[in-house]
Amino acid sequence: MIDTPALLIDAGRLRANVEAMAAAARDGGVALRPHAKTHKMVEVAALQLQAGAAGLTVAKLGEAEVFADGGCEDILIAYPLIGDAKLERLTALARRARVAVALDSLEVARAIAEAGADVRVRIEVDTGQRRAGVLPGDAAGLAREVAALGLRVEGVMTHEGQAYAASDLAAATHDAVAKLREAAATLEEPVISVGSTPTARFAAREPGVTEIRPGTYVFQDRTQVAHKAATESDLAAFVLATVVSRPAPDRAVIDAGTKVLSSDRLNAPGAPVDFGAVYGTGWPLVRASEEHGVVAIPPRTRLDIGTQLRIVPNHVCPVVNLFDEAVIVEGDDVIDRWRVAARGLSR
Amino acid sequence: MIDTPALLIDAGRLRANVEAMAAAARDGGVALRPHAKTHKMVEVAALQLQAGAAGLTVAKLGEAEVFADGGCEDILIAYPLIGDAKLERLTALARRARVAVALDSLEVARAIAEAGADVRVRIEVDTGQRRAGVLPGDAAGLAREVAALGLRVEGVMTHEGQAYAASDLAAATHDAVAKLREAAATLEEPVISVGSTPTARFAAREPGVTEIRPGTYVFQDRTQVAHKAATESDLAAFVLATVVSRPAPDRAVIDAGTKVLSSDRLNAPGAPVDFGAVYGTGWPLVRASEEHGVVAIPPRTRLDIGTQLRIVPNHVCPVVNLFDEAVIVEGDDVIDRWRVAARGLSR
Repeated sequence: MIDTPALLIDAGRLRANVEAMAAAARDGGVALRPHAKTHKMVEVAALQLQAGAAGLTVAKLGEAEVFADGGCEDILIAYPLIGDAKLERLTALARRARVAVALDSLEVARAIAEAGADVRVRIEVDTGQRRAGVLPGDAAGLAREVAALGLRVEGVMTHEGQAYAASDLAAATHDAVAKLREAAATLEEPVISVGSTPTARFAAREPGVTEIRPGTYVFQDRTQVAHKAATESDLAAFVLATVVSRPAPDRAVIDAGTKVLSSDRLNAPGAPVDFGAVYGTGWPLVRASEEHGVVAIPPRTRLDIGTQLRIVPNHVCPVVNLFDEAVIVEGDDVIDRWRVAARGLSR
Repeated sequence: MIDTPALLIDAGRLRANVEAMAAAARDGGVALRPHAKTHKMVEVAALQLQAGAAGLTVAKLGEAEVFADGGCEDILIAYPLIGDAKLERLTALARRARVAVALDSLEVARAIAEAGADVRVRIEVDTGQRRAGVLPGDAAGLAREVAALGLRVEGVMTHEGQAYAASDLAAATHDAVAKLREAAATLEEPVISVGSTPTARFAAREPGVTEIRPGTYVFQDRTQVAHKAATESDLAAFVLATVVSRPAPDRAVIDAGTKVLSSDRLNAPGAPVDFGAVYGTGWPLVRASEEHGVVAIPPRTRLDIGTQLRIVPNHVCPVVNLFDEAVIVEGDDVIDRWRVAARGLSR
């Protein structure tokens, strides 16, 4: 009996997901640089690299250090780095791995140049998410200024977060790629790199794209299923929980609340507000507090206190970040335990 | 310069908050058993116990173990414990500390009795939250059955989560306490224990209440300010963040997203959807992804890349759980660093 709550990873499904995305990248003739923020585990990174990934994407320097320690030699830090402490670490990291960084301002580029960090630069472009990134028409100007600092600008990148609100993923991706190509028009043989799992298969087939950076595909989650980027049988990560209270005929309380599932909602247009669902039955976690998940069940369901249930997360990335360790299973057998080595590394 | 994102604790405000709640409990003639899930730090627990707390409340066995290691001798685990691994640990813990557990079912009571754990029992009562707990009219029956197993039932407890949706906290608390007193009617000299920070001061003055269990009061947060249970000048915990991108005149992107702020919304009726706010200015984090917070700022605000900002969390408890360490400050001076020793202990 696995003590709960626990993060379960289905090894067979994980391998299948890793293979399928590697094949999609190969078929599209693009490089695959998976975003490791989803899994934060060197064991999963190793599977991705063995399957042909060109390198990894990370959000944070601390993650980059963990994966460099774990043997990855080519890392994109898709985040603007600023501050003396970070620039010192970046400079040190760039001596032992091939490192690229994304940025969208001259301030960050100048700090990197002054630190003397031996890194390549990608201009982050806002193709519609309205988060960070320069607008497509401003990319060429920034690229020129960055190059004038002595830094090598190798291309452009975007995170297609806006796709989660789109009704047509293929059209949204085509539009984002057109903006990226506009942004990269003055660069020679640019890297043109597109992020996000639901659009990865479309991006891989778009002319001009040289690289895709999906993350969530390794485990998938309810949001990806809602976007038809995955099916139930692709789900590879679950929170194993135990029924701890049966206070009403239509209510079960489980020991998985927001401290293991996060408060992330389903990220899809018109999705109901809930905190995950029971695998197999689809019973939703209609409410959650830190340590309690309230599952709405059909009245008169036999569901005893002590029963274990697998919960499918709405968004798997923050869930992994809430565990120190993952329990690796084949079917119901525990075959290994992996450390979430890059958990909590926000700096 | 503190590297960001970082969890900042204002030591002076923390001490003042600890003192104020201790005084409220003394004035009401009730015991104070603070919920340690908010801070998860033995240093904060020590301040609470020094100020007169009768013991601590925790949600999880792992938290209880950390605080017992840290010197706390009287702990309420306000959570139904089930499963062999947990019952073994509970039995061991009860040999080195005075332990009470909350439960709402005979199944859990039976497991504890069979394990031979030397613990006292409190019946968890649902006074309106509709999460776990027996209804007030069912408490006496369960208490009798639990006692027949040879366990000592010392009283009743409730978590007044419903208060966060109430317009009149005093009235909501009065109602909850009436239900608790009904539930405890057959017990001799029962503990009558009420949880939640916004209602703690009201509960302390309600006849019959013997104990209050507020948690959030040590640090306070935007939700407590919204409920008028705190003011801006009581806020003692912040996420220090850095501006990393200024992509538009009315938008700043900071390095604090849901990986440090959680996705918890403001828990108050009619509250806007946001992910925190900048301390001092009130600028809201209108969007957040894992590593990015998008701050809406007045157009033409001078806010350079590299500027550090203090962010007030919507709900401080999950925020603390996302950090390994807190930076303790007096004003702007760093005076200490405390480990979040019970972080992530969900089992």
